[in-house]
Parts: sequence; C-alpha cells; structure tokens
Amino acid sequence: MIIDRLFDIIAEKGHVCVGLDTDISYIPKSFMKKFENIGDAIFEFNKAIIDETIDHVACYKPQIAYYEAYGLEGLRAYSNTLKYIREKGAISIGDIKRGDIAKTAEMYAKAHFAGEFEADFITLSPYMGLDSIEPYLPYIENSEKGVFVLIRTSNKGSKDIQYIETKGGRKVFNVVGETINNLGKNYIGKCGYSSIGGVIGCTHVDEGIEIRNSLDSTFFLIPGYGAQGGKAEDVALYLKDGNGGVVNSSRGIMLAYKGKLDGEENFAKYAKEEAIRMKNEILTAIGNLKK
Amino acid sequence: MIIDRLFDIIAEKGHVCVGLDTDISYIPKSFMKKFENIGDAIFEFNKAIIDETIDHVACYKPQIAYYEAYGLEGLRAYSNTLKYIREKGAISIGDIKRGDIAKTAEMYAKAHFAGEFEADFITLSPYMGLDSIEPYLPYIENSEKGVFVLIRTSNKGSKDIQYIETKGGRKVFNVVGETINNLGKNYIGKCGYSSIGGVIGCTHVDEGIEIRNSLDSTFFLIPGYGAQGGKAEDVALYLKDGNGGVVNSSRGIMLAYKGKLDGEENFAKYAKEEAIRMKNEILTAIGNLKK
Repeated sequence: MIIDRLFDIIAEKGHVCVGLDTDISYIPKSFMKKFENIGDAIFEFNKAIIDETIDHVACYKPQIAYYEAYGLEGLRAYSNTLKYIREKGAISIGDIKRGDIAKTAEMYAKAHFAGEFEADFITLSPYMGLDSIEPYLPYIENSEKGVFVLIRTSNKGSKDIQYIETKGGRKVFNVVGETINNLGKNYIGKCGYSSIGGVIGCTHVDEGIEIRNSLDSTFFLIPGYGAQGGKAEDVALYLKDGNGGVVNSSRGIMLAYKGKLDGEENFAKYAKEEAIRMKNEILTAIGNLKK
Repeated sequence: MIIDRLFDIIAEKGHVCVGLDTDISYIPKSFMKKFENIGDAIFEFNKAIIDETIDHVACYKPQIAYYEAYGLEGLRAYSNTLKYIREKGAISIGDIKRGDIAKTAEMYAKAHFAGEFEADFITLSPYMGLDSIEPYLPYIENSEKGVFVLIRTSNKGSKDIQYIETKGGRKVFNVVGETINNLGKNYIGKCGYSSIGGVIGCTHVDEGIEIRNSLDSTFFLIPGYGAQGGKAEDVALYLKDGNGGVVNSSRGIMLAYKGKLDGEENFAKYAKEEAIRMKNEILTAIGNLKK
C-alpha cells in the first residue's frame, strides 16, 4: 500500500509537501534566460527545488492547472516533473481534482496512474458520487496508487456546498468524509491509514479535533498552510500521534527567495531553508500538543 | 453573449451536442491504419465526424479525459479538434469538469478559455463553492465565453452527495442549482438565458418540470441520452418552448457505424444519420409535448 510508504517517509523526513504550482512569474529572470522554451524552464526550476529539498520533505504536489495554462509545453514539464520525482525515489501527488464517472473516469485513471502523467497519488472531487471514485480502486489495490478526495476545503466558498446543513443536523462535508472514510476501510495499510485519503483545509481549528477523530483511518492532505493563513499549531490538530497527514506549502517554499539580496541565484537554497523551517515548526507544534 | 449564439444555432439546427469522447477503440481499424501516430488518427476521426454532422447539430463536446489518457499526443489531438471546430464556425464545449479556486482556477481559465485548449464553453464542478466559478467570470463578461456547472447528474452515485436532504427539506442539488441560477442572472443574453449554464442529467423525469421551472434562466447541458438510457420524451421536459438546452450523445453517434456491413468505410455517414435521427426524435418529442 502506497500509504505505508508515505507514512514511513513522514516519520523520517517530516510533514512537508512541496506544492509545485509553478507559474513562470515565480521563476527568477536570470534562471529563465538559460532556456529556450517555457517547458524546459519550468521543469528545470522544479528540478532545482526538488534536488535541494528532497532530504527534508515528505512529497511533491504539482498542481496541473499551472501546466495546462502553458499548453502542450507546460504539460511536457508536468510529465517530466513527475518522472523526475519518481526517479529520485520520492512520492508525487498529482493535484488534478478530476471528478467524472464510468469510462471517463477510467480514462483519467489511465492518464494519471499509468500514462505519461503518472503520479503516486492524485486528488479527486466527489460531487458526482462514489462511482466517480470507483474506477481508481483497481490501481489502489494492485498498483501501489492512492487518492485524496476533497472533503472540506478552507476557501471562502467552502461554505456554499460543503457546509450546507443536512436534515440530520450535520454538514455535507461530514457526510462526504464519512463516505470516504468507510470506502477507505477496504484499503488500509500496515500503518492503519487508508490509501484513500482526504483533502482537509487547515484553517478551521475548532473542527480539527472532531474531524480527526471521526475520520479515524483517513490520511489527510492539508492545504492552506502559510500563504493561505494556516498555522503550525492548527495543523498539529489534524494529525494523530504526529502522523496521518501531509501539509502543503507552494508559494511559501517556491518564493522564499523573494526579497533576498542573493535570492535569484540561490532560489533553491532558500526553498530548502523554508522547507526545513516549516518542517521544524510543525514538529514543534506537535510536541507542544503532547505536553 | 455566447449563449445567444448557442440559442440561435439550436433554433436553426436542433438540439444535438456531439460528444467527442474519442477512444481509439472507436476508430475503425482501416481508418486508423492511415496514420502514423495516435494523435493524428484521433484528430482525423473527429474531423471526419465534424465535417459530416455540422449542418445538423448545435455543438461539439470533446471529453478531455479521453485525450489525457493518450498523453501529450492525445492532448495535441484535443487542441487540434477545438481549433478545427472554431475554424468551421461551430461551437465547442470543453468537457473538463475542473473545480479549483483562486489562482489555480485562473490558470485553468487561461488554459481553456485563452490558451492552446481554448473552447467556447467549459464544464465545471462546484464542490469547492462559488469562488471556484468566479475566476471564469471575466471571460464570460468580456470574451464571449460560457460555462456549464454540474448541478444534478444522472449516474447512480449522484445520490451520494447531490441528493443529500438539507435541513430545509430540499436536496443539495436544489441549493446548488439555485446558487448557479442566481449567479447567472448577471450574465443573461438577449435570448433570456445565462452564459452560466448547468449540467442536468435527463433520466429523472419526475423532477424535470420542477427543475426547468425553478432554474428559469439557466441553460442546460443534458447528458445521458441514448447509451445512458435517456429518452427524447424525457429530454423534452427539460427544455422550455423548445430551446434552453442541448442534448449530448457520444457513443450513440460515434459508434453508429458498428454492426453495419459497410460501417468501417462509412463511419462518418452513419454518424450523420444518427445525428439527424436524434435531432428529429427530439423535435418530435417537443412537438408532442405542446399538443
């Protein structure tokens, strides 16, 4: 089960997931100039970040929208980035949030679990229901793959659907979370978590403990740290015994070089420093929680 | 407003949307052999279908999953197909069901409304809320673009989230539909419909009239016809005064040649015949409803 690999790597290297939402405006001009086309520049920027951070982070999460925006060139960089992460023995999460059913979902599974865009995990959107998750199950069972399904996000608009109150006095996201947690029971690894994980934004502290307890075997992908306002002490509430979740930071790491005098030349070094700082901050918050 | 173009073309050519979910297994072997690579074969197959059907259909909807499954080659075919539809003066719907927020959604908008994958309409998934729709609004307002947001689909799993009963005694899809209908009020064309449309599966007849009445200015993209069990008389209930919706058929049209003796050589002709048959069947059903 892929989830055991992720669990073990977190125990070893901490909870940081590096979000590779690589907009070309993030790439230092002096670095950009070395390459003839956008696809190479994006990939080489990612590669430099990966090379510097790999000993201090759990995984990498390229957000495919940023690559689609640059068309086929961009998607070549997406594909190359995933291949490079695999070559380095690291874990990748393709942040694609696809959500479709039947043969269409089978085609997405083929593309993102076996094809040119192969990742270890992908993110999925659940609005169409459980049959939008089912086509991925054979890969989870037989090919060391995993998914993170959107459960409760931390953006303003999360109120619009996820927080609708149900007849039973709960929220839509509670129902979705429970459904995903139950489905995941069939794919639990040695670590006690399922290869069917959930995306849970980290900014609603009050609900953190409740969600962590109710979704007992669901591993969390936690966005919203740093640039989006989430703090380490909040994040710690969504973890269990110091594991059970990875915490994503994209711009916080990729743009750590901004404002530094020697930032442009040393962007990857500053990315590493920020990854280490974030890793330690989360470990400290977990430690404080135990006290 | 792009919705006026779609409205007018429906009045002229009927309600058929040709779903270009082009799996390579759908392409006749004898046709396939003419091409050196998959991307060309997929595009040329689509082109042949478009050339034959264009006088009898409202629009074309390539489903991007089928193209992603063939990697960069597949996505080249996706891009070429959209360009060809535009060259022919026809309307395209990129069936991408993307759903993300903020800068990520801006990047999807750039990719699918302005970049190499430019379509006239795209489909979106609403689970993350209204701020997952907002980044597309400038294109709707200024660039003759439109969206279809998932409201209520017709697959088995639609029960899992869309049909959750709310505290107020309604269903989640009612709330989503109303939210989309209200947002759409700001983007209504001369035809009375909004360029923010909704995806409404056509297999739940009992709810058809209710949905059509409550979402008064929402134009519907209706999947589920034919292969998925939807009938013309059901579809007619989701239309208003004979307009207000397009009806998608994918395999029903693309695979109409199967089982015919001369099918392989004449696949595009059989696609045309099926498109005309479907168009007339829907027009007849609308006529019967008026009686």
